[in-house]
Amino acid sequence: MPRYRLDIEYDGGPYNGFQAQEGQPTVQGAIETAIHAFSGQTVRIAAAGRTDTGVHATGQVAHVDLDKDWPAATVMNAMNAHLVREAVAVLDCVQVTDDFHARFSAVGRKYLYRILNRPGRPALDQGRVWHVKRPLNVEAMQAGANHLIGLNDFTTFRDVNCQSKSPVKTLDVARVTRVGEEVHLAFEARSFLHRQVRSMAGTLVETGLGRWTPDDVKAALDARDRTACAQVAPSDGLYLTGVVYED
Amino acid sequence: MPRYRLDIEYDGGPYNGFQAQEGQPTVQGAIETAIHAFSGQTVRIAAAGRTDTGVHATGQVAHVDLDKDWPAATVMNAMNAHLVREAVAVLDCVQVTDDFHARFSAVGRKYLYRILNRPGRPALDQGRVWHVKRPLNVEAMQAGANHLIGLNDFTTFRDVNCQSKSPVKTLDVARVTRVGEEVHLAFEARSFLHRQVRSMAGTLVETGLGRWTPDDVKAALDARDRTACAQVAPSDGLYLTGVVYED
Repeated sequence: MPRYRLDIEYDGGPYNGFQAQEGQPTVQGAIETAIHAFSGQTVRIAAAGRTDTGVHATGQVAHVDLDKDWPAATVMNAMNAHLVREAVAVLDCVQVTDDFHARFSAVGRKYLYRILNRPGRPALDQGRVWHVKRPLNVEAMQAGANHLIGLNDFTTFRDVNCQSKSPVKTLDVARVTRVGEEVHLAFEARSFLHRQVRSMAGTLVETGLGRWTPDDVKAALDARDRTACAQVAPSDGLYLTGVVYED
Repeated sequence: MPRYRLDIEYDGGPYNGFQAQEGQPTVQGAIETAIHAFSGQTVRIAAAGRTDTGVHATGQVAHVDLDKDWPAATVMNAMNAHLVREAVAVLDCVQVTDDFHARFSAVGRKYLYRILNRPGRPALDQGRVWHVKRPLNVEAMQAGANHLIGLNDFTTFRDVNCQSKSPVKTLDVARVTRVGEEVHLAFEARSFLHRQVRSMAGTLVETGLGRWTPDDVKAALDARDRTACAQVAPSDGLYLTGVVYED
């Protein structure tokens, strides 16, 4: 049974998250329906990141096993033809060996959190950014973010419903940059806890607004207490931008 | 009667163009409805660029005369409150003198044309970019664009319904750059003919695909013949990004 790796982009807005749920529009459901439409197969795909409702992806990775040995380009084109009314697109498709698993082979995930930092509300990027009206201090945000980098117990930044066995993760990258009218937060780790990126983003915005100091971020981390976290940032600004595999 | 300058962003997708038309959703209609909602006044605004159906703006400029001397911030906030269900936002509002006219005082207009240049169709930027699957040669496009810069008779690049008295315009900037997966065309001029930017963009894409040479662009310009123009680029990728005024 040939296995295909799918690189996927989607607008999370119209979907109840990535993961398939009976009777709900989901990204996984849209993809599996498209696969069924061209192959006749009822499949279950596996993906690197099970993004929440409203969270976007420019670099989600999934894999699927098909009965027939289709050329990869045919799989991609056929899926895109059936996804044309969905906010989901297959950007790349390659045949992979059976030891590739989109979720379990992943050794890194990259997320981007986009903040539109201007007084005027977004007309073009409504649902695609978090709108923060007051000016953010990017240097203070980076100083706060630096406290999060490394091997830490992220209990404070983890949703109460998080299923992960351990709250201890290594955050490799937490980079804050101003890009025109936006502030971008880039995060990279082997894996993240549930709502970890949005929890960190919310806390860093408090820091950028001057309501928290960078040291308050450190204190919140050290507290290992969910109630020490600032308001969780909305899903609108979050993008899964890439997944890293060992070649 | 105090006059206010409004800097406006909009998604052109849901609107039948900028200009008000009875019974049609238009950007101008949405703005005038919002002004009426907070001021009670039935007004007619003037804008620097009357963008076509589906064309976006990040830097449209309009002006409006109000009966009452409202603080500019109040005008902006009240308008945005009433525009919250529209894809239109007021980014800035300042009180100006009566000799400021959004359209007639403008001495420059800036447009951006965004091309998504990758095999996979856009999921996030559907309606916001022109999707060109095959790789574009940016150097060839720039060489073609260079022929358009300067004082020229743009009859070839003008819609047959263009109302402008003369087809002779000075194109100050025509810059082609690759930005990640996108190719951006930036154009600046005192003013443009109807569909001029989309006509030039369509022609430059032919050049980027190798179907036209840069010299073919020159020949098309010299022909002063609308039928010498390539396919007009779709409205999706076009943005009015700024208007220049003498201070």
